[in-house]
Amino acid sequence: MITVSVVGASGYSGAELLKLLVRHSGVRIDRLFANTSAGKKLADVFPAFNKTLDIVLEQYSVESIAKSDLVFIALPSGEAMNIVPGILAAGKRVIDLGGDFRLQDTSLYEKYYKRPHTAALILKQAVYGLPEWNFSQIKSAVLIANPGCYPASAIPPLVPLLKDSIIEPAGIAISSLSGVSGAGKSTSLEMSFAEVNESVRAYKVGVHQHYPEICTVLTALSAVTPSLSFVPHLLPITRGIYTSTYANLKKNVNEEAVYAVYDKYYGKAPFIRYSISAIPEIKNVNYTNYIDIGFRVNQESRQIVVLSAIDNLVKGAAGQAIQNMNIMFGFDEKEGLK
Amino acid sequence: MITVSVVGASGYSGAELLKLLVRHSGVRIDRLFANTSAGKKLADVFPAFNKTLDIVLEQYSVESIAKSDLVFIALPSGEAMNIVPGILAAGKRVIDLGGDFRLQDTSLYEKYYKRPHTAALILKQAVYGLPEWNFSQIKSAVLIANPGCYPASAIPPLVPLLKDSIIEPAGIAISSLSGVSGAGKSTSLEMSFAEVNESVRAYKVGVHQHYPEICTVLTALSAVTPSLSFVPHLLPITRGIYTSTYANLKKNVNEEAVYAVYDKYYGKAPFIRYSISAIPEIKNVNYTNYIDIGFRVNQESRQIVVLSAIDNLVKGAAGQAIQNMNIMFGFDEKEGLK
Amino acid sequence: MITVSVVGASGYSGAELLKLLVRHSGVRIDRLFANTSAGKKLADVFPAFNKTLDIVLEQYSVESIAKSDLVFIALPSGEAMNIVPGILAAGKRVIDLGGDFRLQDTSLYEKYYKRPHTAALILKQAVYGLPEWNFSQIKSAVLIANPGCYPASAIPPLVPLLKDSIIEPAGIAISSLSGVSGAGKSTSLEMSFAEVNESVRAYKVGVHQHYPEICTVLTALSAVTPSLSFVPHLLPITRGIYTSTYANLKKNVNEEAVYAVYDKYYGKAPFIRYSISAIPEIKNVNYTNYIDIGFRVNQESRQIVVLSAIDNLVKGAAGQAIQNMNIMFGFDEKEGLK
Amino acid sequence: MITVSVVGASGYSGAELLKLLVRHSGVRIDRLFANTSAGKKLADVFPAFNKTLDIVLEQYSVESIAKSDLVFIALPSGEAMNIVPGILAAGKRVIDLGGDFRLQDTSLYEKYYKRPHTAALILKQAVYGLPEWNFSQIKSAVLIANPGCYPASAIPPLVPLLKDSIIEPAGIAISSLSGVSGAGKSTSLEMSFAEVNESVRAYKVGVHQHYPEICTVLTALSAVTPSLSFVPHLLPITRGIYTSTYANLKKNVNEEAVYAVYDKYYGKAPFIRYSISAIPEIKNVNYTNYIDIGFRVNQESRQIVVLSAIDNLVKGAAGQAIQNMNIMFGFDEKEGLK
Repeated sequence: MITVSVVGASGYSGAELLKLLVRHSGVRIDRLFANTSAGKKLADVFPAFNKTLDIVLEQYSVESIAKSDLVFIALPSGEAMNIVPGILAAGKRVIDLGGDFRLQDTSLYEKYYKRPHTAALILKQAVYGLPEWNFSQIKSAVLIANPGCYPASAIPPLVPLLKDSIIEPAGIAISSLSGVSGAGKSTSLEMSFAEVNESVRAYKVGVHQHYPEICTVLTALSAVTPSLSFVPHLLPITRGIYTSTYANLKKNVNEEAVYAVYDKYYGKAPFIRYSISAIPEIKNVNYTNYIDIGFRVNQESRQIVVLSAIDNLVKGAAGQAIQNMNIMFGFDEKEGLK
Repeated sequence: MITVSVVGASGYSGAELLKLLVRHSGVRIDRLFANTSAGKKLADVFPAFNKTLDIVLEQYSVESIAKSDLVFIALPSGEAMNIVPGILAAGKRVIDLGGDFRLQDTSLYEKYYKRPHTAALILKQAVYGLPEWNFSQIKSAVLIANPGCYPASAIPPLVPLLKDSIIEPAGIAISSLSGVSGAGKSTSLEMSFAEVNESVRAYKVGVHQHYPEICTVLTALSAVTPSLSFVPHLLPITRGIYTSTYANLKKNVNEEAVYAVYDKYYGKAPFIRYSISAIPEIKNVNYTNYIDIGFRVNQESRQIVVLSAIDNLVKGAAGQAIQNMNIMFGFDEKEGLK
Repeated sequence: MITVSVVGASGYSGAELLKLLVRHSGVRIDRLFANTSAGKKLADVFPAFNKTLDIVLEQYSVESIAKSDLVFIALPSGEAMNIVPGILAAGKRVIDLGGDFRLQDTSLYEKYYKRPHTAALILKQAVYGLPEWNFSQIKSAVLIANPGCYPASAIPPLVPLLKDSIIEPAGIAISSLSGVSGAGKSTSLEMSFAEVNESVRAYKVGVHQHYPEICTVLTALSAVTPSLSFVPHLLPITRGIYTSTYANLKKNVNEEAVYAVYDKYYGKAPFIRYSISAIPEIKNVNYTNYIDIGFRVNQESRQIVVLSAIDNLVKGAAGQAIQNMNIMFGFDEKEGLK
Repeated sequence: MITVSVVGASGYSGAELLKLLVRHSGVRIDRLFANTSAGKKLADVFPAFNKTLDIVLEQYSVESIAKSDLVFIALPSGEAMNIVPGILAAGKRVIDLGGDFRLQDTSLYEKYYKRPHTAALILKQAVYGLPEWNFSQIKSAVLIANPGCYPASAIPPLVPLLKDSIIEPAGIAISSLSGVSGAGKSTSLEMSFAEVNESVRAYKVGVHQHYPEICTVLTALSAVTPSLSFVPHLLPITRGIYTSTYANLKKNVNEEAVYAVYDKYYGKAPFIRYSISAIPEIKNVNYTNYIDIGFRVNQESRQIVVLSAIDNLVKGAAGQAIQNMNIMFGFDEKEGLK
């Protein structure tokens, strides 16, 4: 039994994390922290927790995590780097669901997050929390940078194809569709129901902070430097990401060969499902920690399209974080994620 | 004042056509035809027409169009080719909203539509109804093949870029998102609300009948033979298509240059709106005959993404048909489409 | 041909009004006014108007309406009363889509709108713009109080039943469901897509400002003082109101008799559709100026339920306003509303 | 540890039941039965179960449940009565999620279900599975009639008010809003996405089979015979029921008094949440077994409105069934429902 606390418990990712933690047999939830909602009960912010989790939200201080073995951080990017050094100094392990520790290169961070990085000294301690590729580093990590929601959908389908030279590293197009919960709680007009409903729009084309994350992680994991475009689109659904990735074939493969490549790398991964026939659908993965992968080869144009679906709040955030926790603390990798 | 009839008035495209025709100052609606709904009033099928259009649906016969100057056909693909030869023989002009006369190559038709083409003799008379490129042929046409909804969103953004060698013809990826009305009235489980809502899925990957239409029309209009992938996705919205097209740059252009190319070809097109800054959104084009085009150049990867949005029932079907009718009969191109 | 201006052109009702005015054959749109958006083009606020209506939004001043025959006001409630006295003094006619002139009793206004009424002197000039009941007063009115969206759906079904003593005036329950556009443009968290989607909630139970409007107008039109509950609910749709009204029968009627009552009062109303068999659906009235009415008698419990549907932005706001304008200026009542 | 089987595992209620059973610590899932899907794997019907529950669906026979302690039936109404007598004869306990055993009066069954009841002999053994009122009978029951989804939302708020004479038994109006999953898997045009989306409609007004269920259960539990109207409405959401009940006050109560009545009866009910201030919202109960209750007194009209929300697939079907199972087999009432 371990004891955990959550900083940023009043956001959507924090709430999702708490829903999963409540069901986890090896976890005791200790303290919950929030900023503007400090002093309120969790159930005042999320009535869904009434009768289920009766805790008062507090202002964070490093003293208040003294009893925790692990601290989850579900804050907007830019806030975690202010408190993580203190948490590590206090000898606690951290899983950060935000973007502050995903880019090792602080100049990239500054370019895409539009602010200086103030905790560069501890960046090297951060392990990118993609269990299917970084299992052993995660096991011993003190600081996990939980992957961004789009990268969580885009990276797993691409790494095996790049690594085994199935596709050309140049000319890759990643077209991603996301539900609105990915943007967190929002009070902007453009995220209001009347503006989002019955519409679709691309956004942050070429400037989204997940673009450098996808590029650098793909390079690190596949030992190939891809050159790609990434376009996120906002959809009128609450949860889920659907990513359609287009690439030019390097090898003359058919679909059986592609399946074999996925099977080689992901045959034992508990949360990756791939199929030679089925096309992924968001509804099959929502409220689960699975990523579903499908693909089709276009022999005429020598291209491949790979389709992947995740729940952005689970495999793209809270579920992935639980999976990382399970690995760090020796739980069954699937505990709490059934 | 011209007199028109509609064959297939009980489907979604037929209904949309009637809504637009009711507002057109130069048109008298004569007869409406349907199959299983023949004998019913239009308002029994679509209560929205109550008090607005009081006509009984009939079984089609060539005699019953004797007074019509123009016959619109809004039937499922495969049915128009049975009746169009007779209508042309009767000296009437035709606009077919279905797919039977869009592919000049009957072997392509048979491959993608999974049936033999039974009216090959009149195929050469068919003019592809894309007003921005085929204006003068449309003017004198007796048979218009109204473009498919996906091609209507995908072809206009690509032709100028191919024609002016801005992009490589190989390695193009067309990622299209469509509302459900594109599938017409459906009683299949997979189109039921509970299956479509809060989900997304790609479908007919590599086998969609609009794939050869896009390829052959692009080739015809740009004098370049592109090699591309086209992936349609089903979204939980009723109307609208959003197409994100990824291509590799051939010329070293910036966004100003791309804008200039669109301006060169579409500066006078009444229903094409393009912008160097704005990103298209479905909500801006729904219930209109506009196509909105936006784009971003990725200098790092030497790629471009072009984004386009239409209302699949208007610019992708009924509105385009009205625009074609306006050209054929000398009306103002925008009449009835404000 | 009349000349009109619109104050509050940057909101949803203002935009809907402009879409309808553009199609009206007897209207010239002169000036458009907005507050924070003044100086912008209309198409910068609503890209849908690109290429359709090219006007710059201005700050309102009474001088700037000098050429207008009619001024539409589509401001949030509480703002119209500041400018209407000046417009009337300038000899212009006004249609106010907000709530400032709907309640003749200023104490009711102050109780439900939570502010003092600052233009009580002109209240008596205001005519409640319900054309089916106040046609002749509308014809000669200088100031129209356009009905609220909920009252527009709730009052027409009830008046004939109260007037003809079909139902008891006590114990009436009005359960109304509305799409989010009724709330106007919103930047509150509770109107964000993630909070509204896949949910339903009642709101402002017992304190909604349309409650006294419904009560007082019913009393004025039926000469009976009803005692009722009104509960508005927010639905995850953009447009439309569905009102289910429950009442106890006073007379022993069947459905034929109820139909006859509606027919007696609404047989010639161009925008009221009622049926003895059909159940209204929002989709049949959306984007139209119709109100659809259906009903069922429960002989066992001696109750009746009346169901009504409107488009809150059309019959519940802009369409109703156009209908009132048509009556005021002698146009065909249906002009611009087909 | 008990062993259970599910008849009707290929429908939405069956699938929801399996998702909950997988997480229940005291249950082993034995056999799954379906009709047209027999022979397929569960994951072929519901890809969401891939890697989670690997069982082949079979045709039901009484022999195949030999090892089960409990059989859940999630068949369309009318099918359970054919097999339940055999299951009881085999000495197994049954929880039927359908409507066959909810009405003790077979003439009511025949009137509203439009078929004869063929298992009238065992009707008396059926216990109505509303744990908050029938706990001890459920404990020893061999056959549970799990409540219908609308009754599950409408009965709990009303019983205390009727029992304690807070409201008049006559003139009650129950206005219920449901997501589409309540209708089960559907291939009808009227349940297709294009027909349901962005609309609302009442349906089966006065003839819905849950109307007599609500009336007879209210009478049985409150010892008062109410006279009421019940109108179900279909909403464009997947899950959830929102019920707004209007009644005339019999006693002169304020909201504190109403709260006290709920507290008296439901103070210890683990899955009923009631509040004097909060208004229920579907999103707070979705994916949970809670029913949320709120209310407002209208002193002016002497009426009360009570609002209640449930997840139709959980508290309105599968969750309620699990709760009943927990009581029958001595598990903690909340096991598997956190």
